[in-house]
Amino acid sequence: MELTEKKTGGREVYHGRIVNVQMDDVLLPGGKTSKREVVEHPGGVVILPLDEQMRVITVTQYRYAIGRTMTELPAGKLEPGERADPAAAALRELREETGATPGSFVPLGVLHSSPGIFTETLYLYLARDLTFDAPAPDEDELLVIERVPFDVLVQRIMDGAITDAKTVAAVLKTKVRLHL
Amino acid sequence: MELTEKKTGGREVYHGRIVNVQMDDVLLPGGKTSKREVVEHPGGVVILPLDEQMRVITVTQYRYAIGRTMTELPAGKLEPGERADPAAAALRELREETGATPGSFVPLGVLHSSPGIFTETLYLYLARDLTFDAPAPDEDELLVIERVPFDVLVQRIMDGAITDAKTVAAVLKTKVRLHL
Repeated sequence: MELTEKKTGGREVYHGRIVNVQMDDVLLPGGKTSKREVVEHPGGVVILPLDEQMRVITVTQYRYAIGRTMTELPAGKLEPGERADPAAAALRELREETGATPGSFVPLGVLHSSPGIFTETLYLYLARDLTFDAPAPDEDELLVIERVPFDVLVQRIMDGAITDAKTVAAVLKTKVRLHL
Repeated sequence: MELTEKKTGGREVYHGRIVNVQMDDVLLPGGKTSKREVVEHPGGVVILPLDEQMRVITVTQYRYAIGRTMTELPAGKLEPGERADPAAAALRELREETGATPGSFVPLGVLHSSPGIFTETLYLYLARDLTFDAPAPDEDELLVIERVPFDVLVQRIMDGAITDAKTVAAVLKTKVRLHL
């Protein structure tokens, strides 16, 4: 079954600080036409830093869009030019937010946050064998860094205390991968 | 540590078909001010329909924002007025997309797709003891409905074939919950 939608026109209807919005005209497989509203996001990286005692370094910060503080894995947006090497961006972000440098750094796959409308693509990594320097967070970032036992993090996901999609996905993929 | 950001002003900078964008002025805990760009989304529901043979009903469709077809769990946006009862919206969506009515329907928690900028809140449900009528999809929705063994779906998540955040989260939460 042919499902592909082809762009026939469109324009940028919003140009913002982090996102842009594109309104496109598309041709559907059956020959009908439609509109597609697309929120363009630069994408990002997500790191699950797991220490020798099987604790995960988490970041708690206020999320204005949601209206409360949330506990998440360290993450950051991709800058222009970083898309070719998201692993390098992830290592930089991990170092800045937590001070950690990993001896082992493996991809946990890609995540699409909301593929119906949002282009955001996240690159997930598992970081182990950590050594630490002082973190160097952005001045504007007000963060609480904690070390949470892996099992406790899973429990907080299962009981609904942690609701961030990238954190849920990366923690549970790691649980399956490492048989934890 | 006080992390809350307080709105001091702002305006809608984009009013779209599915999303709106709000640009707010905020007061940070330290007394500094900043801007917050917020993409407002109506939220949605996600259903994991699991049949007696431990197969999951999946929906494959073209995702224009990502530029390819994606396999996902059945899901839908909340209409205005449905936010007070997302379970009812989820039952309607499941019925429309797959024809299924569940005998057992339990919440799997809430998911925030991209809390740094996006308000989208998803309500996840596990549907079991399914009985079937003919599905009644929206005319514009070109979908391929399949039944995929639960273990195969987990494998496709782990090997990177499935990248949709809501699907990864709901399938792996179900795996942990049901000890699958």
